[in-house]
Amino acid sequence: MELPFSRVAVLGTGLVGGSFALALKRAFPQARVIGCDRPKVLERARERGAFDEPVPDAAAACRGADLVYLALPVLEIVRALPTVAAVVSPTALVTDAGSTKTLICQEAERVFPSPRRFVGGHPLAGRESGGIESAAADLFAGAPYFLIGAPEPLDDRLRRLLAVIEAIGARPVWLAAGEHDRLAAFLSHLPQMVAVALAETVLEGAGESAGALAGPGLRDTLRLAGSPYAIWADVARTNPHLPQALDRLGRWLERIRSRLESGDLREDFERSNRLYKILRRLE
Amino acid sequence: MELPFSRVAVLGTGLVGGSFALALKRAFPQARVIGCDRPKVLERARERGAFDEPVPDAAAACRGADLVYLALPVLEIVRALPTVAAVVSPTALVTDAGSTKTLICQEAERVFPSPRRFVGGHPLAGRESGGIESAAADLFAGAPYFLIGAPEPLDDRLRRLLAVIEAIGARPVWLAAGEHDRLAAFLSHLPQMVAVALAETVLEGAGESAGALAGPGLRDTLRLAGSPYAIWADVARTNPHLPQALDRLGRWLERIRSRLESGDLREDFERSNRLYKILRRLE
Repeated sequence: MELPFSRVAVLGTGLVGGSFALALKRAFPQARVIGCDRPKVLERARERGAFDEPVPDAAAACRGADLVYLALPVLEIVRALPTVAAVVSPTALVTDAGSTKTLICQEAERVFPSPRRFVGGHPLAGRESGGIESAAADLFAGAPYFLIGAPEPLDDRLRRLLAVIEAIGARPVWLAAGEHDRLAAFLSHLPQMVAVALAETVLEGAGESAGALAGPGLRDTLRLAGSPYAIWADVARTNPHLPQALDRLGRWLERIRSRLESGDLREDFERSNRLYKILRRLE
Repeated sequence: MELPFSRVAVLGTGLVGGSFALALKRAFPQARVIGCDRPKVLERARERGAFDEPVPDAAAACRGADLVYLALPVLEIVRALPTVAAVVSPTALVTDAGSTKTLICQEAERVFPSPRRFVGGHPLAGRESGGIESAAADLFAGAPYFLIGAPEPLDDRLRRLLAVIEAIGARPVWLAAGEHDRLAAFLSHLPQMVAVALAETVLEGAGESAGALAGPGLRDTLRLAGSPYAIWADVARTNPHLPQALDRLGRWLERIRSRLESGDLREDFERSNRLYKILRRLE
């Protein structure tokens, strides 16, 4: 396959940045991938062998790159954008993998004079265990990869980014930033917060005995309870739709609570069963 | 292995009853297993080959059995107990697999003059798809199998039941009925209701697009959303600890809701990560 980018700077060498590097190198072994992070994190990335070159300084990492990939917590991406914009080649493409998009895209609009130089992204792929140690070349396989804006007009830079996204096995989905954050609130950020709250409740109610007494249903339901705090603080702060999503969940829970005594939960289970089938494409 | 029971009547030939029959026959091929259910359900069980003999009438199924296994929704078990008590041999053991135990054990105490004749049980094994079609001989492998009461004095009937439970791969855990229901509220029934409420919220917020846009995290979190209504109506009605568990969850959710703006969720994620590790025995 033709090499879409020859020198790629990945800022943030954790789970997503590391997996992107591994996936990219698998698809395009000739691409040179620069990893940029704090020295301690870079050292772990080096042990994992995901990057060709570790560079602790962001400006130095971006110089000469034709693709800059920001795989940091949302507010760190916002803070990194002016630095990146100041040093990156005018012909390079800058993209990110932040979990919310409104704030990031606003800041990118401010710092990049040409809209062709930045496109916001969000691969909906994750793993409850973070860090480069959990990175995998197939993390994006089959996952939706949100891109912010509209694909048209498709310029050369964008065409090459799409080639990368497809080469790593993801499915590009174009959305406006606000619509992305609204959907992500329901499909990703609310489930995460629910897993945390449920885990806290179970810990409070059953304590250590949960380890010996829980069944596989609880373990699956609470897979996201293992997610690292680091990225979620920024998600909580920057998704304007999350409070509303939590409020709606509260109303559905109250409805169930009020129907426990009668056991009249048929409609609730019907809706729930319907979404289960939708998620597994059974209908 | 010595045959602990030679004629076993299983009332309810769905997922749990069917799996119990399959597991029992695998461990003790010489045992004769009678399946009892509505004719239509029995027909499906027959196709699956899980039972040696289909008997639509409960009294007829129990006559001559040395083990009666009630695998029905909770209130159907309560209703079946007097019938079973009236016909079953005085030397037989009666047990059940109902999801809540307080009501069932109260009724069993009333209808069985000798406490040796009944022991309440609850295998914490399930699958989100119900029915005999989902039954499997290994459903109980590695799962906790709650038994109500205390193991001592261990009479001969109980020893034989324990032999069966161990032969099907489950781990017996002795508990009082009230403590069982309290723990099950947190470990099983609350997670189920949360999955339903979360599914309803996601369906409301993202609709059909959830099918194309959700990641693997949501699919795992909502595995229980596929559970069939049939058994859960009775769980909702008969677990006295479930309202309290839902209230506690509500308080944790409110706490998270109030901290979204500051993003100060470190303690919440720490508790959540801790339970995650407990569930996977990582600490």
